[in-house]
Amino acid sequence: MTRIEVAFQGARGAFSEQACRQLLAGHELDFHPLGRFVDVYEELLAGKVGYAVIPFENTLHGSVHENYDYLLQYKPAILAETRVRIVHNLIGKPEARFSEIERAISHPVALSQCMEFFRKNPRIRAESHYDTGGSVKTVMEGADETTAAIASAHAAKYYGAKILRKSIEDDRENYTRFFLLSRETPPDWPRPTGKLKTSLVFVTKNVSGALFRCMSAFALRDINLTKIESRPLKGRPFEYLFYVDILGSPDEENCSNALRHLGEMTEMLAVLGCYPPAE
Amino acid sequence: MTRIEVAFQGARGAFSEQACRQLLAGHELDFHPLGRFVDVYEELLAGKVGYAVIPFENTLHGSVHENYDYLLQYKPAILAETRVRIVHNLIGKPEARFSEIERAISHPVALSQCMEFFRKNPRIRAESHYDTGGSVKTVMEGADETTAAIASAHAAKYYGAKILRKSIEDDRENYTRFFLLSRETPPDWPRPTGKLKTSLVFVTKNVSGALFRCMSAFALRDINLTKIESRPLKGRPFEYLFYVDILGSPDEENCSNALRHLGEMTEMLAVLGCYPPAE
Repeated sequence: MTRIEVAFQGARGAFSEQACRQLLAGHELDFHPLGRFVDVYEELLAGKVGYAVIPFENTLHGSVHENYDYLLQYKPAILAETRVRIVHNLIGKPEARFSEIERAISHPVALSQCMEFFRKNPRIRAESHYDTGGSVKTVMEGADETTAAIASAHAAKYYGAKILRKSIEDDRENYTRFFLLSRETPPDWPRPTGKLKTSLVFVTKNVSGALFRCMSAFALRDINLTKIESRPLKGRPFEYLFYVDILGSPDEENCSNALRHLGEMTEMLAVLGCYPPAE
Repeated sequence: MTRIEVAFQGARGAFSEQACRQLLAGHELDFHPLGRFVDVYEELLAGKVGYAVIPFENTLHGSVHENYDYLLQYKPAILAETRVRIVHNLIGKPEARFSEIERAISHPVALSQCMEFFRKNPRIRAESHYDTGGSVKTVMEGADETTAAIASAHAAKYYGAKILRKSIEDDRENYTRFFLLSRETPPDWPRPTGKLKTSLVFVTKNVSGALFRCMSAFALRDINLTKIESRPLKGRPFEYLFYVDILGSPDEENCSNALRHLGEMTEMLAVLGCYPPAE
């Protein structure tokens, strides 16, 4: 067991902590729960932690553009990806009763994913809190038994709280994709085996022809894409940035040829990381 | 001036109402503010309103996948698009003072876009409300002058409330793209002129080769794309649904050829709508 320092956005018990456990299974973890995503990148870059775990995509909400922007700015290495199913629970003090709950606190996004629950239980007022995990802590520290939190089952267990209602999220197909990041790939990081996934970002001008040509770099070499997303560039009409994930690694000859070919056709090209696919 | 019934999600004064005014300028509007997106689609399909205005994309949060799903399910016509800049303001009763505000209520997503404001003003507690516009209504109806709302300047004006702090959103590059929907294109709807935009959705198998071939339908005919986004299909690994916007209309010969060509290569293809580009 190696002891590992890992930073994430949120309080203890957040879904990001669950992602940390999935991504760094078999290690003893020292968690650095931080307030904002930018704080997580800065701690990582300053060397205060060896690893960071960040959400990049959610099945309901799409990509977290903010975090893709930070990838480009801070240029960390992506070591691995994982998917966490987002299950929200209503969590109270051990002595709380569901029928007496009048207020539920949680992160705004978690509250917005449980709108049906609030509509069916109009006596329960939704109140914003800094974080899902942190809302359980606040409930446990407060004197009031009529306040509950909305968070993961892990957060309930971590703070010794009681689950009053399980799985109150509106949509069961709610998954978040997280990346494990480090400043650079650690020398002792186990070399991944099997088919790898590579995340890229590139900028083209003139989209129709240019994107088609860019994609030929992969298609002509039978390289599969698992994600493509365009994002208009701020203040540069008709220019786009593309996020693309491919199945393959720059260590493979056809993939490294594809990247060289792609480089000829793009204004900017960056390999964000290469890692084993989550499934 | 024609009187038009239009439905949107949220309460009066919501950003969607602002989008309604942009999309239906020059008409007198009867607003149907509804609780959920699905309610808006159902009122439209039941003929209770002639038009609906729905958000589909935000520069920070990406695409609203839920609403794309409803497009496929309810198959309304897209008549027009618009972009609304999301500016959040702290709004109180006319006699309220900023220094005395202790609580700010708004939609969870609006609260999450003003995190810096709450960090700098820790005395102000964030509390979730059904809606941005509705939160101003609640503030105006309540007896308490220490509670403020977070909403658009339009909502402040509509409810006769006072703006205590302008533009408290974290990111100025916060725009939402809305569509104007109707059951079918109304016979008296003015025929759009100039270059049009068409929104498509299609399903391919085997992504690398298939998507490349699909895109050849456009590239070989010099048709520009303005958006592409992949979305994994639930329960069908390695199959994807693509949302694509092109510059062109099925009324143009090269575009109709491209769509026929695309149809040969896809498992499913639907034209979601054809409308003048917002800019």
